[in-house]
This record gives sequence, C-alpha cells and structure tokens, in this order.
Amino acid sequence: MSRYFSEKLKDLTPYVPGEQPQERQYIKLNTNESPFPASPKAIAYANEAAKQLQLYSDPECTALTNKMAQLQGVKPAQVIFGNGSDEILLLAFNAFCDQKTPAVFPDITYGFYKVFAELMGVRALQIPLKEDFSIDIADYRQAEGTIFIANPNAPTGKLLTLGDIEEILKSNPNNVVVIDEAYIDFGGESAVALIDRYSNLLVTQTFSKSRSLAGGRLGMAFGNEALIADLRTVKYSMNPYNVNSMTMAAGLGALEDQSYTLSNCETIMNNRSYTTKELRKLGFTVLDSMTNFVMTGHPGISGEELYTALKQRGILVRYFDSDRLRPYVRMTIGTKDQMDAMLSAVKEILEVQK
Amino acid sequence: MSRYFSEKLKDLTPYVPGEQPQERQYIKLNTNESPFPASPKAIAYANEAAKQLQLYSDPECTALTNKMAQLQGVKPAQVIFGNGSDEILLLAFNAFCDQKTPAVFPDITYGFYKVFAELMGVRALQIPLKEDFSIDIADYRQAEGTIFIANPNAPTGKLLTLGDIEEILKSNPNNVVVIDEAYIDFGGESAVALIDRYSNLLVTQTFSKSRSLAGGRLGMAFGNEALIADLRTVKYSMNPYNVNSMTMAAGLGALEDQSYTLSNCETIMNNRSYTTKELRKLGFTVLDSMTNFVMTGHPGISGEELYTALKQRGILVRYFDSDRLRPYVRMTIGTKDQMDAMLSAVKEILEVQK
Repeated sequence: MSRYFSEKLKDLTPYVPGEQPQERQYIKLNTNESPFPASPKAIAYANEAAKQLQLYSDPECTALTNKMAQLQGVKPAQVIFGNGSDEILLLAFNAFCDQKTPAVFPDITYGFYKVFAELMGVRALQIPLKEDFSIDIADYRQAEGTIFIANPNAPTGKLLTLGDIEEILKSNPNNVVVIDEAYIDFGGESAVALIDRYSNLLVTQTFSKSRSLAGGRLGMAFGNEALIADLRTVKYSMNPYNVNSMTMAAGLGALEDQSYTLSNCETIMNNRSYTTKELRKLGFTVLDSMTNFVMTGHPGISGEELYTALKQRGILVRYFDSDRLRPYVRMTIGTKDQMDAMLSAVKEILEVQK
Repeated sequence: MSRYFSEKLKDLTPYVPGEQPQERQYIKLNTNESPFPASPKAIAYANEAAKQLQLYSDPECTALTNKMAQLQGVKPAQVIFGNGSDEILLLAFNAFCDQKTPAVFPDITYGFYKVFAELMGVRALQIPLKEDFSIDIADYRQAEGTIFIANPNAPTGKLLTLGDIEEILKSNPNNVVVIDEAYIDFGGESAVALIDRYSNLLVTQTFSKSRSLAGGRLGMAFGNEALIADLRTVKYSMNPYNVNSMTMAAGLGALEDQSYTLSNCETIMNNRSYTTKELRKLGFTVLDSMTNFVMTGHPGISGEELYTALKQRGILVRYFDSDRLRPYVRMTIGTKDQMDAMLSAVKEILEVQK
C-alpha cells in the first residue's frame, strides 16, 4: 500500500477470483465455466469485429440490445450491457446504495457483494441463510436497504421460486431488489418476466456460464426504464465504451444461436443429475442445485482437504474458508468425461482416507 | 431517473462520447481513432483467443504485462491493465481521491476528469489554461490534491516537456501526479522513464490511438510498485476480470508488432504537418499538436458551424460547447486522402461563407 492510498479504502479486502492456471493441464471445475466453446457463430462474429478494432465500440450496444430485447420480449430501454455482470453489479451499487441505503444480502452468497459494499463505503447487512442453506424470504420483508439476491444462490445452488421473489418485491416497495441470475439458465425461472410489474426489480444476467463467454466479459441487467436509465447515468460517468466490439459481436452471435446454448444447458443439467447421484452413492451430501455447479461435502474429509487431494490429481475445485462452508467444496459441472474423472479421483481419495 | 437513484448522484452529468454512427458513410475525424486497422498479428491473436472464450480471462494479464514490462524496461509489478484507460483513471480516482483529497486538473482537458470527480463525490479544482491554451506549471506547485494532467493535453494537443513534469512532481511530494499519456506516441516523450525516481508518479496510456485498438478497450498504468498495488486493490474490488481474453491477446500481438505501430504513427505525424500547413494557408489558427488531432478554428466560422457544415459533407469532427473553445473544432488526423477530403470540404465551406 502506498502512503497516498485513500484512507477510506485502507481496510478494503478485495475479491479473490478462482485460480486461472495458465498451464492448461487441469480439469477446471473451480470457476463455473462452461466446458463447451462459444457458439461457432459467436466466434465468427468476434473474428469479423476484430477487423474494425481501430474504431470505438458502440457505447449503446445497439444491435446486441435490440436482439436481446426481442428475445426477452422487453423494450431496448429496459436492457443494459456491461463488462461482465460484475460491472453491472458495480453500476447497481453506485446507483442504489449509499450511506443512507445499505446493501442487504445473505451471509452465504456471491462473495463480491460484500466487497462492493466495502469499496463504496456502504453498510452491508448480511442475513444468515437457514440451517439447510436456503433463504427465508420472511427475513427480507421491509428490508433496510437495497436487496441483492443471487437466484439460484451461489455457492449453494439453491433456487427461489418466482412466487418467493414476488413476495420480496411486494414487501419492499421502497427498496430496489436486485436478482442476480448468473445461473438462471440451468433450470431456473427468470424474474425478467416481472420487470413490467415491479418498478423496484432489477435482474442481472451473464453470458459467462450458459453462453460460454466467460473470457469475453459480457453481462446485462433488465428492469423498468427508469432503473435502467439510472444505470446508464452511472455507466456514462464511469466507462461509456465498457463493452468491447469483439465481445459485443460474439454476444450477438450467441443470441442468434439459441439452440446451441439450450442444448449445452441440457447436457450440463443431465451431467448434474448424474454427478449428484454418483456423489451421493459415495456418501456425499450434495445440495440440490439449479446451477452449473454442486456444493458437496463428505463426512470423512474437509472441503480444503478434498480440494488439495483433487488438485494433486489434476482436478481444480473451490473450497471456502468460512465456518459453515468448511465441510464443502463447490464443483463445476463439466462434461460427462470430466465428471467421471472427478468421481474416479474422489473414490481414490476416499480409499486413501480410510 | 427513478425514485431509487442515490441522492448523491442526482446532479451527475455523464460524459458524452463522440458520435459513433452505425452507418459507416462518414469520414470519422471526431474521436481520435486510428485510420489504420489493428496489426495483423493483433487480429490473429484475438481470433485465436476467441476459441477459448468459455474460460475466464487471466485477471493478472500475465503475458501482456510481462511483454509490456520488458518493452518499457520496468518490472511487471509496475504495470496494470484496464478496460480502456478510462477504467484505469477510474481506479486512480478511487485510490487517490476522496473527500479530503480533491482532484486538480486544467479547466480545458479531457472532459472525463470532471465526471469522475462528480461520480466519486470529490471536489474538482480546475485551473485555467493560459491564454495560449498552455499549462502554467507554476499553477501546480504544492497543489491541494491529486493532479491529473493529460500530456499532450486534449483537445489542445499541447505537450509539456519531461522537465516540466519533473517540476510538478518535485513540488508535490505529498500528492499523486497522474500523467495521462493517451496521445504520447505521436511525438511526445513519455514520463514512464521517471517512475523509479518519483514515488508519486502514475502514468496512464492506451492502445486506442497509436495501436488501433479503440474497439478492443485496453489501457494501462505505470508507476512504482506501491501505487500499482493500490490500483490492483481497487481493481480486485471492482472487476478482477476487467480485460477480456481477446483484447488481451490483441494487445500482445500489437506489442509484438512495434514496427507497424511506429510506421503508422510516423504517417499520422506527417499527415498532421501537412494538415496544419494547409489549414493555415486557408487562414485557420491551428495549435501546434503533438497528438493525432489538431485543434483549429477560422475567424469566419464558429466551431459548431464548421462541425455542421462538415457533417453535411460526410465528415465528422468535434466541437465544444464552452466559452474558450467555441471558435474551434478538434479534428482527428487520418490518412492523407481523408485529410484532402476534409480540406476540400473546408474550402467549399469557406467559399459559401464569403
């Protein structure tokens, strides 16, 4: 830290991203990436865009916005894109949280909410999940600030129903409710359908998971026009050209190849069922997941031990250094072959443990 | 604006980017883009990276950072990359400005500094340029906060010498001095050479101009390790995967093709001399520029009028709605053909004016 660093940030604890080993020998089940490459159409469009990199990207993301609006049945003015959904969340923290308006979210959820709150100097009210890691929606009635709920939640994989979400929206007319749907495409029902009915609803999504564009950085938010206008005000005060032109083109290509995305999601969901069943046969607790990962633990081994043993066998998963999560690891659902390799390694590890 | 928008942002006036018409019929001399495509190597590397978009990009930008450090003769820990240099400036405003530490910059300079200050809720101390649009370095002795100086300045195109920069650095041991070198590759001398000697110096640069990657969004900062560590803390609290993998690869390709960049810069500088001379022949005032644009005005026509008349003739330039800049437009230096087209249009416009 330099002696010039702003005092207000001196205690800031940055987010720690999952390992991105540059050598590619690992089976990567640690950052919830897709095991499939981006759609050939996405890649082709990105390549075409690379020929015009000398020109600034379109700050309005016009073609992408129009296509997304059409697919979701919303107006273009109800959509905004960002450099990953992390940036979209940053816009939302800027727009809807401040010293008077804290951020409200579960104690176990996407770790970045807490970091954004610290960065912005806003209070973070963390509400404990229930014993079974589910969200008690009663805890969010008339909340004290802007609500952030990952749905499905991470790293638990648990889903709230749209009915639950509506309960939260109705009981918080004076608070923005941000529903972070990074993992919605793996069996969940999106709250985008509700944006015309609830002026306090903001829904964020990403191309990183279901659309295989993690490396492209593309996220978006849906909400009523006034909420989106607020995010636009912040975006144009922060980074107007926030989405590069190759990613913008890749995103359009991905949207024009919905069947590819749907088919990949179906494969992942099948592999998730298979993995869940097989892990349970081995004595693992596996939370029912509606995402492209599972949270799982075994009574005979801690999360960190399992992480280390799997890493030694060329498989990366993620463990968490917090009391309630210590028994667990989070494993991304990859291809059937990757899951079988993980299961074989797990069997071997449990043998050694005996 | 929604009723949920944070009160602290209610008066925020966002940055207005230059027009990016989606129809491509204009000669674009309005946003200081390069008239040349990115290096073939940059494009090839980006295309290769598109095959692996399902994986998150490397948050450390390892290969790019190492190559840049090697070229500049600095340590990798003295370099950080961002989603355009706008994002780098945002990191710097977060790290080095707060309620106690205002931002200090010229009244006529890159318009975004003022917006960042408003967004962050920090005071902006704007110091008027001299009558001839140059910076009086005496005005920056023992400044009251973090200094932001675009060098060369925009939209004036005027350059401070390294000696001037050193004077500012020496007289501000308690302030960070940010030298924004977006346009340094068109004849200026970079302050990167000074980072080991001044712990308060941060130098920002971009791939948008000289390296033809405006649409890719890639910027960086150089400074001593402690300053860069501060920016990293903010980056990892804001958007760890801030640079997408295609752009990261394109940047590496561009760095491996320095002769292409140097040759393009030389062409631009030659076209700048030519344009300056020709405009002066027509009675224009043209500020001596060390950038890829010129600020120019004619006694017979206001900046806005010239902008409008040129736009009608298919040529986009930029005018500014502020007292001192009203007589001027800012014109990007493009190819010789583009400059000749602009000059012909200007002659026609002056004829009509008579």
